[in-house]
Amino acid sequence: MIIMKKDASPEQLQHVIDEVTKVGLRTDVSHGQHLTVIGLVGDERQVDFAHLAALPGVKEARMIEAPYKLINREYSNAYGETRTHIVKIGNVELGGDEPVIIAGPCAVEDRDALFRIAEQAKEAGAHILRGGVFKPRSSVHSFQGLGASGEAGAIEALTWLKEAGEKFGMPVVTEVRGEAQAALVSQYVDIIQIGSRNMYDQDLLQTAARTKLPIIFKRHFGASIEEFLSFAEYIAAEGNKDIILCERGIVPVGKGKNYTRYQLDLSAVPVVQKETFLPIIVDPSHATGRRDLIRPMSLAAMAAGASGLMIEVHDRPEEALCDASQMISPAELKEIIGLARQIRQITVK
Amino acid sequence: MIIMKKDASPEQLQHVIDEVTKVGLRTDVSHGQHLTVIGLVGDERQVDFAHLAALPGVKEARMIEAPYKLINREYSNAYGETRTHIVKIGNVELGGDEPVIIAGPCAVEDRDALFRIAEQAKEAGAHILRGGVFKPRSSVHSFQGLGASGEAGAIEALTWLKEAGEKFGMPVVTEVRGEAQAALVSQYVDIIQIGSRNMYDQDLLQTAARTKLPIIFKRHFGASIEEFLSFAEYIAAEGNKDIILCERGIVPVGKGKNYTRYQLDLSAVPVVQKETFLPIIVDPSHATGRRDLIRPMSLAAMAAGASGLMIEVHDRPEEALCDASQMISPAELKEIIGLARQIRQITVK
Amino acid sequence: MIIMKKDASPEQLQHVIDEVTKVGLRTDVSHGQHLTVIGLVGDERQVDFAHLAALPGVKEARMIEAPYKLINREYSNAYGETRTHIVKIGNVELGGDEPVIIAGPCAVEDRDALFRIAEQAKEAGAHILRGGVFKPRSSVHSFQGLGASGEAGAIEALTWLKEAGEKFGMPVVTEVRGEAQAALVSQYVDIIQIGSRNMYDQDLLQTAARTKLPIIFKRHFGASIEEFLSFAEYIAAEGNKDIILCERGIVPVGKGKNYTRYQLDLSAVPVVQKETFLPIIVDPSHATGRRDLIRPMSLAAMAAGASGLMIEVHDRPEEALCDASQMISPAELKEIIGLARQIRQITVK
Amino acid sequence: MIIMKKDASPEQLQHVIDEVTKVGLRTDVSHGQHLTVIGLVGDERQVDFAHLAALPGVKEARMIEAPYKLINREYSNAYGETRTHIVKIGNVELGGDEPVIIAGPCAVEDRDALFRIAEQAKEAGAHILRGGVFKPRSSVHSFQGLGASGEAGAIEALTWLKEAGEKFGMPVVTEVRGEAQAALVSQYVDIIQIGSRNMYDQDLLQTAARTKLPIIFKRHFGASIEEFLSFAEYIAAEGNKDIILCERGIVPVGKGKNYTRYQLDLSAVPVVQKETFLPIIVDPSHATGRRDLIRPMSLAAMAAGASGLMIEVHDRPEEALCDASQMISPAELKEIIGLARQIRQITVK
Repeated sequence: MIIMKKDASPEQLQHVIDEVTKVGLRTDVSHGQHLTVIGLVGDERQVDFAHLAALPGVKEARMIEAPYKLINREYSNAYGETRTHIVKIGNVELGGDEPVIIAGPCAVEDRDALFRIAEQAKEAGAHILRGGVFKPRSSVHSFQGLGASGEAGAIEALTWLKEAGEKFGMPVVTEVRGEAQAALVSQYVDIIQIGSRNMYDQDLLQTAARTKLPIIFKRHFGASIEEFLSFAEYIAAEGNKDIILCERGIVPVGKGKNYTRYQLDLSAVPVVQKETFLPIIVDPSHATGRRDLIRPMSLAAMAAGASGLMIEVHDRPEEALCDASQMISPAELKEIIGLARQIRQITVK
Repeated sequence: MIIMKKDASPEQLQHVIDEVTKVGLRTDVSHGQHLTVIGLVGDERQVDFAHLAALPGVKEARMIEAPYKLINREYSNAYGETRTHIVKIGNVELGGDEPVIIAGPCAVEDRDALFRIAEQAKEAGAHILRGGVFKPRSSVHSFQGLGASGEAGAIEALTWLKEAGEKFGMPVVTEVRGEAQAALVSQYVDIIQIGSRNMYDQDLLQTAARTKLPIIFKRHFGASIEEFLSFAEYIAAEGNKDIILCERGIVPVGKGKNYTRYQLDLSAVPVVQKETFLPIIVDPSHATGRRDLIRPMSLAAMAAGASGLMIEVHDRPEEALCDASQMISPAELKEIIGLARQIRQITVK
Repeated sequence: MIIMKKDASPEQLQHVIDEVTKVGLRTDVSHGQHLTVIGLVGDERQVDFAHLAALPGVKEARMIEAPYKLINREYSNAYGETRTHIVKIGNVELGGDEPVIIAGPCAVEDRDALFRIAEQAKEAGAHILRGGVFKPRSSVHSFQGLGASGEAGAIEALTWLKEAGEKFGMPVVTEVRGEAQAALVSQYVDIIQIGSRNMYDQDLLQTAARTKLPIIFKRHFGASIEEFLSFAEYIAAEGNKDIILCERGIVPVGKGKNYTRYQLDLSAVPVVQKETFLPIIVDPSHATGRRDLIRPMSLAAMAAGASGLMIEVHDRPEEALCDASQMISPAELKEIIGLARQIRQITVK
Repeated sequence: MIIMKKDASPEQLQHVIDEVTKVGLRTDVSHGQHLTVIGLVGDERQVDFAHLAALPGVKEARMIEAPYKLINREYSNAYGETRTHIVKIGNVELGGDEPVIIAGPCAVEDRDALFRIAEQAKEAGAHILRGGVFKPRSSVHSFQGLGASGEAGAIEALTWLKEAGEKFGMPVVTEVRGEAQAALVSQYVDIIQIGSRNMYDQDLLQTAARTKLPIIFKRHFGASIEEFLSFAEYIAAEGNKDIILCERGIVPVGKGKNYTRYQLDLSAVPVVQKETFLPIIVDPSHATGRRDLIRPMSLAAMAAGASGLMIEVHDRPEEALCDASQMISPAELKEIIGLARQIRQITVK
């Protein structure tokens, strides 16, 4: 990265950008309150940092060691921003002191159910409404969401989601699984979700990033944190830094039963907060797959410092077409939200 | 699946198909030498097997337990085919007694190098030429293949690959990483590869399957065999069963060093051969990441019964833009191919 | 297990025990407030449950499915005890509402340091003093604790530990790594710890169990919860149920860095509490290996419902001969304990 | 390590040893054909290598980077030995070109069965007889071997094993699970086995090493190769380098089924051969847990370069008290041994 002097002129900034572009890299310019920093996209070994450091207006030029550079704490510290980046979605701010709750059914299945659940989630204290239209599934023989029934089905489900969000004053989020879905989905939602199974899908990440919508980016269940952040960098490199990282469980360890779908890795929360300026939320529903574990793991996520929770909720779990065993009731959600706020008040420094 | 009687009429077959379609499932009809079997795509719980079994012309109707049904050994056994499915690519037959060798550079980088390597690989005994145009990379800052430089770059690289294959009499294969690349790539190559990182990307699998080209389908480095085959089923469900499974290493275990990039899981070879009728090959280059391990692991793969090998080769490894440490020379390749054939002769039952 | 009727006579109980012993199994008799239940040690397939159920005084006779039977919630529920088992160590009760804090240096290194740390840990609110004498180490070339210097060194270190505990009113715990150490150690400490690396060492578990001291039993970093509890059963089968389970992190997932020594599996806390009546504590020090993560992960463990914490503390971390990077100061410990209590008050149902 | 000059005198050697001992380390002196090298046991940071290098008779003094120093290839290369160390057990040589086959039942269960199996294993071409007396088991409720029935039972089983070995001209090996068993077992067997679950049990390793018998040392199913070799170093540090490393499968990866008990990591074979001079064998029985996979994985192990195989064999698998599903017949063993020899002839360089 190249840190510009306080009094660097726009021409000097442009000159540095030109020099970088000349050797085949792209730039990412970040303006802090007092300082401007230029991040680099591409192979930094092509860059002569000594040369850049000597250019007029340049305070310092050096490499960031980690493979994630544009989302690195070191980068935001360089332009003088030490807080977590706040992602604004409508009137919701994610990344600040107040925990943000994203709730809703696993899949959008029918209009009435969605509206009923949305109303109750709102009443319970949730801020953002979730609902799957294109469901990633391990088996081609399983229900793939209403999106699988063709474009008309997808549009219908997306319309319901949008209307439910508007009616109850909640921004909405749904998952995009394939590149071809991004353009359509972006017309209806406030946030795009990239699911765990698609974390490594760099073309999808770039396509989603270009919609300019905030992205909830879930860690793959087999990915190290370094990999997770390296792939988040694909989104940032498209100029979109409204990235909400999401921990949702890693593959269970060892032989025999662990009694949960995945193993929630809560140390990812403080680790990610040291490594990057992006906010991180936690999804206890997919991580545990068990209704009775949502409460303790939600509270633990709060105590670990997560910026929010993503929880599957259904008023009639037995009717849900997917993930019924991990749905909690709106009443349980309300209790969790209340406790989450109390824990945040105690633990925030 | 529904097994038809030997003397079932086309009308009876159609009637069964209609009954299945009526409850919302799709069908996959397989004709063996003597028997015809109907596979089902969708949720089998919707199906009344007792009802189907009673229809005229039906010999037997029952569920296949595994989540992969259309590629299941049980399915091919039912229509009387007990051998491994042979995938024909030009005049190359993959899945029979003779091991098939796929070789070439990691990435297509320049025309001369590609032609030079192709010639030497052919001379060493390789059957199919590989070369990456769209490279999946852990970091957005790394070289992403010539495909990353825009459509013109991609077309140029694909053209070189096609020409090199034609000149030296080898079918060619390259990786497709995003849905948008499938249509373009399919005009130039004989086989499409889906890489490890994209194994879970069901929309990409379906898009690639629809090109009707044979697919080399690599196991994700964190996937169980059940998951691997469940995602191969996405390809088969599009009517494309020319699937070549590929084991390329799983994530290393434990704390500390394992001294290889991944851990090659060779028991996957006989396991997959029991579970499915599809052929499986092994990629020791990506699994080990070490030139000195290609020989022992190639020979071990042969002894385990693999139908072929996929090996990265370069005549000037130090010039390779990616994966230089795992490239072997054409001379080493020749020796491995010779030994592989001898082992196959000994071990084939 | 065999559940006796409320009014079963001692003779009837003895008769059932004799019948079980006759076919080669051992028994574990548990008296609840109202009911008595007989657990079985050995292969239950040797047992004719129908025969036992028909004996006088028997209410019910049936198998417990899980491989851990004597520590199973189903077992304690059968004799009418629904709370977590409380392990009493001197005047400390572990397993109740109040979180119990175990703190101290990684290794006992010198008398003065130990006393200084003990005093400050006590002042910070810790209940139990820890200190390693026989240190398990990955390398034979590393410092192995004072126990490695011969019996005299071990006795000296154990004496210091005992005296420090007595002086500051804290029960003490140290790790036993080999069978030969159990008899010696049990003369000096109030609790025996079995470390992660020894979890599978069934002979050691039995030897330690027979000292009749409470056992802190740490999960192996590669063990599933089923395995963890199956090996805890080895201790219970010796008649010692004063077992304190301890989660201390599992092996990191995936390729690349996770930035912690291990990954703390906090879902183990509520899962273990459903499966068994034993209390579970959490060790954030070994799990993370990072001073800056002790606070968030301690608080998360509390929110998840852990019965206690085991934390390494040192007043001069830079002088510690092992694990210096994960030591917190007594002041940090004090803050954590205060917050832990507040979280417990909020979250306890 | 300290490499002595060719013409160094015994007094000079002793002086170096004294200097090392003075700072608290132990030494391991290895005499090659021409050169003598002193290995160090303990924390090398205590050692002033510059000082040692300047002593009379010293050619070179430097640190070995890996945590395993006394079993390191770098160490044996230094004293001029480039071949794999050959472990001699009676008239069997393990580590040379000829593959060594260790075969026998999972557990010693009755005298007649053992003798019958031993005879047939010998006839099939096996060199060493195995049989478990102290069985490590995941559940305290499972059959633990005849050793569990008390000392008399253990002695009886060990006597049978010894007699069967003598009668059919095969050295014998059994597992030692706890320290207390080592002295007894060492009176009856030619090799001691340390099982996978005990790999981390450093006190057991030291106790077993001190019997001076060769040790078959199995990799823990969750251990990296670095860890595996670091714990083998505990044996070597006791002066016992007759260590036969054994790969027996690692924990399965991912969600869902892998259809094998463990995953055989055959790349461990060439990796270990680069890192250390110790021989490595492969146990396909425990790795796969499936009779039908023993043949392909045995042959693959041979092709990868293993020095031998450890295979469970039984003439009446249905009567075996443990691991029945992975037992092959003596006839199958014979076929595998024949093919193994052919593969070795082809692949040996």
